[in-house]
Amino acid sequence: MAIKRLGKQTLTFPKIPPYICASAAVVGDMEGAGPLGKSFDVVLTDDKWGEKSWEKAECRMFEEAVRTAMRKAAWTPETVDCLLGGDLLNQIVTANYAARQLNMPFLGLYGACSTMSESLLIGSLLIDGGYADRVACTASSHFSTAERQYRYPLEMGSTSSTTAQRTVTGAGSVLLSSRPCAAHADVRITAATIGRIVDLGITDASNMGAAMAPAACDTIAAHLRDTGRKIEDFDAVVTGDLGRFGTEMLFSLAQRRGIDLSGRHLDCGSLIFHPQQNVDCGGSGCGCSAVVLSAYLLQCLRAGKYRRMLFMATGALMSPASNMQGETIPGIAHLVVLERG
Amino acid sequence: MAIKRLGKQTLTFPKIPPYICASAAVVGDMEGAGPLGKSFDVVLTDDKWGEKSWEKAECRMFEEAVRTAMRKAAWTPETVDCLLGGDLLNQIVTANYAARQLNMPFLGLYGACSTMSESLLIGSLLIDGGYADRVACTASSHFSTAERQYRYPLEMGSTSSTTAQRTVTGAGSVLLSSRPCAAHADVRITAATIGRIVDLGITDASNMGAAMAPAACDTIAAHLRDTGRKIEDFDAVVTGDLGRFGTEMLFSLAQRRGIDLSGRHLDCGSLIFHPQQNVDCGGSGCGCSAVVLSAYLLQCLRAGKYRRMLFMATGALMSPASNMQGETIPGIAHLVVLERG
Repeated sequence: MAIKRLGKQTLTFPKIPPYICASAAVVGDMEGAGPLGKSFDVVLTDDKWGEKSWEKAECRMFEEAVRTAMRKAAWTPETVDCLLGGDLLNQIVTANYAARQLNMPFLGLYGACSTMSESLLIGSLLIDGGYADRVACTASSHFSTAERQYRYPLEMGSTSSTTAQRTVTGAGSVLLSSRPCAAHADVRITAATIGRIVDLGITDASNMGAAMAPAACDTIAAHLRDTGRKIEDFDAVVTGDLGRFGTEMLFSLAQRRGIDLSGRHLDCGSLIFHPQQNVDCGGSGCGCSAVVLSAYLLQCLRAGKYRRMLFMATGALMSPASNMQGETIPGIAHLVVLERG
Repeated sequence: MAIKRLGKQTLTFPKIPPYICASAAVVGDMEGAGPLGKSFDVVLTDDKWGEKSWEKAECRMFEEAVRTAMRKAAWTPETVDCLLGGDLLNQIVTANYAARQLNMPFLGLYGACSTMSESLLIGSLLIDGGYADRVACTASSHFSTAERQYRYPLEMGSTSSTTAQRTVTGAGSVLLSSRPCAAHADVRITAATIGRIVDLGITDASNMGAAMAPAACDTIAAHLRDTGRKIEDFDAVVTGDLGRFGTEMLFSLAQRRGIDLSGRHLDCGSLIFHPQQNVDCGGSGCGCSAVVLSAYLLQCLRAGKYRRMLFMATGALMSPASNMQGETIPGIAHLVVLERG
């Protein structure tokens, strides 16, 4: 029997590796004006997208990301075995209402900004385990819905702190299939590591990067320990949305464990905006890593720029209520390994 | 190769059926005074449990449910491959902070009150797929944290409507193992059906049973269609928290599809309180089905009262914000089949 589990936290997919067969990203105007602007499938010109509320717009973005990816793969909703995903809103209403419209079997996830890699991980279990042939993994966030839920009503015009990151307005969907896809250079998920919750006692809700960096370091170290690999075995080590400050912290924490990330680290939160777009420490939100993966990173793998990529979305696991009750902000990071055929 | 998928929505676990090897339930005083009071492991005398807030008490209940189950199975936290679970609070903070204390690899789920069966379903994938040997599936809810988040501050003393259900204060944890457990009469999960979101246009947030009943009917019908089984093949068909009104609606919807539930249906929301406890239509919340399964239903299976049980927790997928924006309340139901050895 093929080995499916390595060490304490790592799973491998040797039987039916989940192949990527399409992806799509729908983003807001500011993301469209960023360095990756041309890679996105749909760029909104108005962040309400003609809907009555930002929440309804985010829901439509989630649905549209899945539908666009399905069009590329020539899948119909009836042929999808399971939709997996989530978002940042209370009770993940974005994902729930979008799943209602898509009418597919649905498993709702909440991993804060780690949701995209959590959905790819569980999607991979379904495919490699032989339980499904086609799954759609999706995550979204929206600047205006997140601000008013987590921080202040936008109408107040609050200023942000220097460590703050801007929640990305975006929805990204990746379709996994049990069959190889030549058009995607047989890019597939070969392994995944389930993260543990790590809390170094950060209490500043405007400094999520610092809250997530320890978890990111913990999961990378667990993956290397479980697989016996070195960090040099990866062409690219991608984090979700640590931002500028969180990335510095990750480098320093990793260095202490003998892991040198220099020259191979990318952060979706840093890739998505130009420095002159005035976004403090970069982008964040579960849509951030979802759209950068869907639109840009998979393209890099397809084109052969990278052969083996560690993709790890990171989440800060707090709520406004827990923060007000004086709780610290723990982080979590799940990773998947993407390889070119 | 063994068949692992049946029809559109159903998975089977023929390879390494996930065996139940322990369970535990921690509940509030009112649940302790109900008909199942003696079955629970811990009954709180004060719903803050000595903590500074109800939220912190709920978090401790979640953690204690897992730890109590682990003690029964003689498991240590380091030997658990994955903790799966969620709760009803925004950003599932209960599960997140409890997972931090337990320090296990963790996958956070949100399925509203369907979370317990969602966690058993994904836990079963991990075991049967060969990715894990030991997983802990857990869900919780708390009357006082839910009331102030979803409805009104308790201090207001609002009255409830006649269709309302009382959120159960309780946390239940079920441990799944890749090895048979004679002490649990080899009770195992043999199949699961992933639910779709069903919305019949209910907008009354005090009538969750009606919002969830259509989804419950849809998932039962999908399971029977996918497996070719009849409803008579089950000794017990258990729903999570439809309550009195939702149960009536389920019977009527099922009847129209030729499914006669009479004589074999149980609802956790109806089992947990005495009618004279003045709880309107019964209990609700994801803790409701979690504690009734953990404390009572598994005991019935062990004792041979039932041999094959369909356990289906149901969730109403709304948020106060979506409700205020005029959205209807869709429901979802996932089911697992539990069988005695």
